[in-house]
Amino acid sequence: MNSRPATGAGSQGGPQVAQPWNRQRLRSNNEWLLLEHLRTGGAASRAQLARDTGLSKPTVSTALAMLARAGLVREAGLLAPERGRVAVLYEPDPQAGHVLGVDIGRAWLRVAVADLAGRIVARRDVPNRGRSANAVADAVVAAAREATEEAGLRPAEVVHAAIGSPGVWDESKGRVQYAGNLPGWGRRGLFERIAAGLETGISVHNDANLAALGEYADGVGAGSRVFVYLLIGTGLGMGVVMGGELQPGAGGAAGEIGLLPMAGGARTLEDTAAAESVVRSARELGMRGTLTAKRVFAAARSGDPAAQAAVLREAEQLAFAVAVVAAVLDPDLVVLGGGLGHGADLLIGPLEQELHRLTPLRPRLAASMLGDEAVLRGALATALLGARPEVFERRTAAAG
Amino acid sequence: MNSRPATGAGSQGGPQVAQPWNRQRLRSNNEWLLLEHLRTGGAASRAQLARDTGLSKPTVSTALAMLARAGLVREAGLLAPERGRVAVLYEPDPQAGHVLGVDIGRAWLRVAVADLAGRIVARRDVPNRGRSANAVADAVVAAAREATEEAGLRPAEVVHAAIGSPGVWDESKGRVQYAGNLPGWGRRGLFERIAAGLETGISVHNDANLAALGEYADGVGAGSRVFVYLLIGTGLGMGVVMGGELQPGAGGAAGEIGLLPMAGGARTLEDTAAAESVVRSARELGMRGTLTAKRVFAAARSGDPAAQAAVLREAEQLAFAVAVVAAVLDPDLVVLGGGLGHGADLLIGPLEQELHRLTPLRPRLAASMLGDEAVLRGALATALLGARPEVFERRTAAAG
Repeated sequence: MNSRPATGAGSQGGPQVAQPWNRQRLRSNNEWLLLEHLRTGGAASRAQLARDTGLSKPTVSTALAMLARAGLVREAGLLAPERGRVAVLYEPDPQAGHVLGVDIGRAWLRVAVADLAGRIVARRDVPNRGRSANAVADAVVAAAREATEEAGLRPAEVVHAAIGSPGVWDESKGRVQYAGNLPGWGRRGLFERIAAGLETGISVHNDANLAALGEYADGVGAGSRVFVYLLIGTGLGMGVVMGGELQPGAGGAAGEIGLLPMAGGARTLEDTAAAESVVRSARELGMRGTLTAKRVFAAARSGDPAAQAAVLREAEQLAFAVAVVAAVLDPDLVVLGGGLGHGADLLIGPLEQELHRLTPLRPRLAASMLGDEAVLRGALATALLGARPEVFERRTAAAG
Repeated sequence: MNSRPATGAGSQGGPQVAQPWNRQRLRSNNEWLLLEHLRTGGAASRAQLARDTGLSKPTVSTALAMLARAGLVREAGLLAPERGRVAVLYEPDPQAGHVLGVDIGRAWLRVAVADLAGRIVARRDVPNRGRSANAVADAVVAAAREATEEAGLRPAEVVHAAIGSPGVWDESKGRVQYAGNLPGWGRRGLFERIAAGLETGISVHNDANLAALGEYADGVGAGSRVFVYLLIGTGLGMGVVMGGELQPGAGGAAGEIGLLPMAGGARTLEDTAAAESVVRSARELGMRGTLTAKRVFAAARSGDPAAQAAVLREAEQLAFAVAVVAAVLDPDLVVLGGGLGHGADLLIGPLEQELHRLTPLRPRLAASMLGDEAVLRGALATALLGARPEVFERRTAAAG
């Protein structure tokens, strides 16, 4: 119930329901609705927009003219129907603004600049040499500035940067917690340093959460009611999307299942199920040489029995993780992603078998579709979510 | 964006925003808003209502007259301000409808009839003799009919019955799953039998979920962002309330943490942490005689070292459950309820210590405030949620 007095439009002759808008805000509201309709529904003519939205044609014309003046829509060609007049098609101008997505991974730093349509226009992937946390922060800034320049933008022209990082962002302390795999990464001031280097507003998010959003928006998660994304790599993380909304928990630590105590608290689930444990198992089972999880999976594919046994052990550990998540959240889909997601084809079969042994609650399992791109895609989607209304406000205010 | 044509009020002279209402629906809408305002805000005069809602005084008068004619509001006394006229105060008429709440527990069957204000007007608690599932169903019906009669109602006058049961309700199969502690309770047709006996519409809900809702609405959970209720009794269940909404999971099995695999799948968390495990521990630790969890807790309170050690073991098992839930959901509050909730004062200290050893994620712990009443209160709250709009629709339609 709204206790504000009824103002402006809607109060003359109509019912006395309080309207939260005045005429000015209402006009912007129509323009925002039209812009979002064009974005989600594709290019459309004035008449189509009037029909789809219930707005009058003159209202649509005025709004489109304003949006064009603000640089928010552009002409997208002509519609020539069999009968009737040829009509101009309109679409959102993707050049109206740009965002930055960043994925800070243990092995790779990935940066992308995207336009408002979400199209990547410049990209940098650099190895994370990780000599110090400051060096990592500086490498992120350097990669971002290169990508921004390649996109033909000044740094300040980037509307927003969304950054995915291991661990949990603590807004009050301005630092990341529980990022054990990135030494020194919990220090204060690191993200201020990045924000200053980027010359734009930043937001920091858990990497698995962003990957979950990315996989929900652009990957196999679409339509899932309770969707869980497992990020299995150097660490072990999880993102939960319910009814389309990310669930970060009360303090942002939801999905930190790497911290799950195992063996009476002597170890964590991350100790037993992240990439390093595959290497450890393979070595225990007799594999020699310089091992990485990737090599163990490749050896398993070519029939090496020790590698296959190591993969089986990993599947058993992950089955426990899935059984835990199923008992708490009852998801309809669990996606395996992160570095070990590449081995999902080898993992899913034995994982399902072990799950049968462990629990009657068995969600559908699937391999990540976005692979290494999931965090970056989620970062871009998150940056766009905030940037679109911001660009709209700025540009409509400037265009009067 | 709404693609329906603009109809009725709001389209004359005002902006061309599509309105989903016509005049008739809008009138009901005003009345519903006023009724809800009176319910949540307390008795109020016509002038107060006009001020609070932004509706005009004539609109409020017409709506109140209609609500009174429909038997939905009644006069609640007079407001005599220092200046100005004496005004009549209105409140929702709690007699406009009644609901039934049912808690099917392993030891007790509890039934309550409440009016629309949620006040319990009749109550039956009967021991669950549980000789057969049909006998339990019949005992529920008999208790409900007695309570209904005591409330001076015919069975058909009860608008809705919400039933809490262990296990997960499967709507498509019309039966409950995973209710291992109630033999035969998974059979089809049981709830049809109850519905037929009650002569009213029923809905079936997981008992821990209802308890979570009850404790969130009326107990210690109020205001929690991510709230977890642990039902520790004959079984082990959990309810999750996020942002005020119950989270049942994709298939209704969220919070079935009793099914969590332990010791490599040989046991479940329910085997190690529900009431029976306290008795088993106490026996292993040397206690003799006929033991129940309640007796073990009583002995621990009076200083029996074996009983104290058994309580300590239980706290350790529950700490694991809390650590698991913290890693997945990051709640800000975990409430201990159910039969063992009575021992929360003994459990919480050692549970917190063990939690410190297990995980850095440590939600606040609290004892249930509603105790044995939580499921029943949640059932009544759930029944009221559906019954209030239903009574409104029926009565306004009848009053024209």
